[in-house]
Amino acid sequence: MEQMGTRDRLFMAALSLVRRQGYDATSVDELCRLAEVTKGAFFHHFTSKEQLAVQATAFWTTFTSQIFEQAEYHTFEDPLDQLIGYVEFRRQLLVGRSLAECTCFLGTMAQEKYDSNPAIREACFVGIAIHAETVRSIIAAAKARHAPCATWNEESLALYTQAVIQGAFVLAKAKNDVALADDMIVHLRRYIELLFQYAKED
Amino acid sequence: MEQMGTRDRLFMAALSLVRRQGYDATSVDELCRLAEVTKGAFFHHFTSKEQLAVQATAFWTTFTSQIFEQAEYHTFEDPLDQLIGYVEFRRQLLVGRSLAECTCFLGTMAQEKYDSNPAIREACFVGIAIHAETVRSIIAAAKARHAPCATWNEESLALYTQAVIQGAFVLAKAKNDVALADDMIVHLRRYIELLFQYAKED
Repeated sequence: MEQMGTRDRLFMAALSLVRRQGYDATSVDELCRLAEVTKGAFFHHFTSKEQLAVQATAFWTTFTSQIFEQAEYHTFEDPLDQLIGYVEFRRQLLVGRSLAECTCFLGTMAQEKYDSNPAIREACFVGIAIHAETVRSIIAAAKARHAPCATWNEESLALYTQAVIQGAFVLAKAKNDVALADDMIVHLRRYIELLFQYAKED
Repeated sequence: MEQMGTRDRLFMAALSLVRRQGYDATSVDELCRLAEVTKGAFFHHFTSKEQLAVQATAFWTTFTSQIFEQAEYHTFEDPLDQLIGYVEFRRQLLVGRSLAECTCFLGTMAQEKYDSNPAIREACFVGIAIHAETVRSIIAAAKARHAPCATWNEESLALYTQAVIQGAFVLAKAKNDVALADDMIVHLRRYIELLFQYAKED
């Protein structure tokens, strides 16, 4: 993190600590320690831990968007291949990573703070919705080509891909086993294949 | 809660507060206040908040098991109808409830404490696994009758039903909208229908 500025180092520290131990368990002191910044520097950039958390959601979205934008599946010609490729890419992101490294900053924080901190909750949903929109546009193209008469809603299916992945993380955390998340996401792939196969047979 | 004993009142308080605001945000003082018990009484029954949380998972499992055992879907003759009935029952449990009232004590706590508190994590997984096993036995019977040659694994599908529901809760919390959880669970129903429809066409 040496080359990053103070703000980005604090964002990275927030992603790391909140994903591992949650929002409430993470103190400003701990964030400063991991980011190697002084408490004075923290409060020069942020008025509170809450403000850091809200802004960290945008940092997370930018950070993860770059990872997805560079993924190979975008180069596939058929949007249905892109969609399956997206799901497979989500599985690849689990390989060789600990749960704290592969799970979602937004989902973790939304679960904990949804009721007690509306600003954090809203920022988490914005981030999830931005990512879901990239999936929705792929689904829309795949539907137009392969299942134009299907009655399911593409926006709902895009959110469902995110719900499955979030739920896969919850179960994997409960079992302390990243492999369980992978096993769950295989069901998502099969569902998508069945949705399109079913439509083709109409 | 007047007729309940001290332990059960503290369990009920834990379910309520942890589901609304998370584990770390919930203090022993707050638990005692909601349960209307003294701090002395708390520490007569539990050595720590952690011990209460671990034991509350078994309370939760007993409490929710009774709700599921009394549901109508168990009376359906065809196990596939029971399985679809189970999914529909999960949807019914959302109706007229706030997110704090309809979401899962185990999933919420596992998400927050999976890394920092192995005893809580393990207790959450035991509870999820006990419930998933009741779903697995229905899936096994449905598979034996309707899809004996299907290649998907019934235990994995049972866990997947729980992953979808947990993920539906995460997204609903992020959006602050119980209806989104319902919309996600409709996809689970469609997946199960497609799995069995597909098998029938073999």
